[in-house]
Amino acid sequence: MLAGHPIAAEAPFDTPELGEPYLLTPGPLTTSYAVKQAMLRDWGSWDGDFRAMTAEMRRRLLALTGDKNDEFDCIPMQGSGTFAVEAMLGSFLPRDSKTLVLVNGAYGQRIAQTLNYLGRAHTVIDKGDYMPPRGTEVAAALDADPAITHVIIVHCETSSGILNPVHEISETVYGKGRKLLIDSMSAFGAISLDVNEIRYEAMVSSANKCIEGVPGFGFIIARKSELEAAKGRSHSLSLDVHAQWAHLIKTGQWRYTPPTHVVAAFLVALRQHEVEGGVAGRGARYANNRDVMVAGMRELGFETLLKDHWLSPIIVTFFNPAHPDFSFDRFYELMKDKGFIIYPGKLTVVDSFRVGCIGRMDEHVMRRVVKAAGESLREMGVDTAAPPAAAIAERAKLAA
Amino acid sequence: MLAGHPIAAEAPFDTPELGEPYLLTPGPLTTSYAVKQAMLRDWGSWDGDFRAMTAEMRRRLLALTGDKNDEFDCIPMQGSGTFAVEAMLGSFLPRDSKTLVLVNGAYGQRIAQTLNYLGRAHTVIDKGDYMPPRGTEVAAALDADPAITHVIIVHCETSSGILNPVHEISETVYGKGRKLLIDSMSAFGAISLDVNEIRYEAMVSSANKCIEGVPGFGFIIARKSELEAAKGRSHSLSLDVHAQWAHLIKTGQWRYTPPTHVVAAFLVALRQHEVEGGVAGRGARYANNRDVMVAGMRELGFETLLKDHWLSPIIVTFFNPAHPDFSFDRFYELMKDKGFIIYPGKLTVVDSFRVGCIGRMDEHVMRRVVKAAGESLREMGVDTAAPPAAAIAERAKLAA
Repeated sequence: MLAGHPIAAEAPFDTPELGEPYLLTPGPLTTSYAVKQAMLRDWGSWDGDFRAMTAEMRRRLLALTGDKNDEFDCIPMQGSGTFAVEAMLGSFLPRDSKTLVLVNGAYGQRIAQTLNYLGRAHTVIDKGDYMPPRGTEVAAALDADPAITHVIIVHCETSSGILNPVHEISETVYGKGRKLLIDSMSAFGAISLDVNEIRYEAMVSSANKCIEGVPGFGFIIARKSELEAAKGRSHSLSLDVHAQWAHLIKTGQWRYTPPTHVVAAFLVALRQHEVEGGVAGRGARYANNRDVMVAGMRELGFETLLKDHWLSPIIVTFFNPAHPDFSFDRFYELMKDKGFIIYPGKLTVVDSFRVGCIGRMDEHVMRRVVKAAGESLREMGVDTAAPPAAAIAERAKLAA
Repeated sequence: MLAGHPIAAEAPFDTPELGEPYLLTPGPLTTSYAVKQAMLRDWGSWDGDFRAMTAEMRRRLLALTGDKNDEFDCIPMQGSGTFAVEAMLGSFLPRDSKTLVLVNGAYGQRIAQTLNYLGRAHTVIDKGDYMPPRGTEVAAALDADPAITHVIIVHCETSSGILNPVHEISETVYGKGRKLLIDSMSAFGAISLDVNEIRYEAMVSSANKCIEGVPGFGFIIARKSELEAAKGRSHSLSLDVHAQWAHLIKTGQWRYTPPTHVVAAFLVALRQHEVEGGVAGRGARYANNRDVMVAGMRELGFETLLKDHWLSPIIVTFFNPAHPDFSFDRFYELMKDKGFIIYPGKLTVVDSFRVGCIGRMDEHVMRRVVKAAGESLREMGVDTAAPPAAAIAERAKLAA
């Protein structure tokens, strides 16, 4: 399917010359060699050349949102994705706000934890390990508590791999006259967050997810009216989004030392993202990765936690096999020996593991992943990857 | 002088094959090619290989402090150096503390600004653009205000390039029963902060300074008793030093996604630092860089802001020449054309510029810097680099 793909010709989805494992993880992920090569020089952060790189990066990221009326701006933020989420919360939630946090995994929980640090009022709808929040229950919560001013949702909750229904939630939130923030860390760049289709005030993502850069900074895309209102609101000097924005506008520079090499790499990643067809092209490759990998794993007897309707093209949770000789630690090492680093599960109810679909990989790589999983099972003496009945029962709770 | 140097043979202090300018700036700076090459692969942040890299990095950094009794620990922190300073302040200053901030430039001012964000009580001794804080005045301030619990000083204030008298201040602070924190951002790794010689509770630096890594994270080295006391104190989830420490101890992993490539580069930088002779070897090269560069610039007529006693081996401030045809912007571009990126001045009283002495450069490079400065002056039609009388009068205020 990717044979005629423009990227495939110029840079195959394979890095055998390096002998390094593929990262089947939700980021840091496997990046192209060209992305990494961009880090082979030093940049002065004050110099005009680097300022031009920052400007191009911001312009390209903004373009991915479909902002036609110049209503939004893009602000990079040093640190991991969590730093950018905290910056967004501290900057866009007024001190007297009250936020409804929609939780169905670790990243939703982390948002509530951050609001505890910040001393910002909030309430939570916690759906457990993987059940999606729905518009009707959010509407009821908003009706029941007029003090709630904001709602925040995780776009793809990588704890389970679920793609949350942000469009449905956005319709509900604005229908009830509230404002929406989105943590699109692991989804932006592969799943549309077009501002003409989904209404929100601000969203956050990071360099080392679906744009396929290396880790070192995140970015916030926010409505300019919200950016202006954020002045003087942040709890943190370093994480003050308004101050970073004001400095970028005034000087073209990041307020404090940027991770120059990581930015140079990200710019190459953004150009490759465009060549692949932008959000649609990138999303199509990831969806195909998922489909090929899930089909192959199911043939081996593995079962996904989620029904197909909720499976993101980002990362997929599988139940551990019921077989007594299966051990995740052994499976991890066997897969790593074969060139694939997988990810442990994060469910509280049943044992599981995760396989990512994002990064510089295509369906051919995913077929090799499936082959390696089959071989690893055989080496462990596990003749069937079928999960325990309890796992399947757990899954049955989830409506399609 | 560096002819017999072990590094000189294996990796010359020259990168002509890249054609990129030297960064005569206080970081980001020019790094070795081997440091950058370490970024040519992707690492899983959860994987054992990367955990081992983190452990080696922390061990090597701690060793630079001379900690023999296992009293200190090292905690990396994502983001720029300012993020690490804010993390240190939020974590080690109790909510009911009062801090004396010693200010003689932008970085001291930034510490006071951070404490405003954090709502932590503080008072300031502001010495202006470049005068050093002295033990006697600090003693008087501590005597006058028993509420002061902590003092913080910037080791090398790169606004002017002054090397502040941390040993003298430390003696005073502990003589008065208070605690000292040190912002050693641009000095650590080249100027000793041996815990057996200078007493302090915590210090902070970053990857892209005297260890000669690339930017993307900082690190805090702190007394373990202070780390334990910091539990639950931070104003920020992301910048919580205790939580990062606890997670590192428990799992060997950074709490949130580390800048994996930047860490890999930093590890190579640390190994090269050791080969060069550690803090003493690195400091000797930088001091020689400074001596050669300052002597050459003085021959051209340039004058340093500071008298020799206060000149750090990190960065040096020169007065702009009085000649009417001198323009910093033009000088910057002419120097850049010749392969050297210099740095604007930050003095409020007189016009100035700065030249850094740190990064992958030796005295041969510094001689080329001086040659380029002389040529740039001639191209501007400036026949003498002598500064205005007002600048020299300004300098006369400074005792040796």
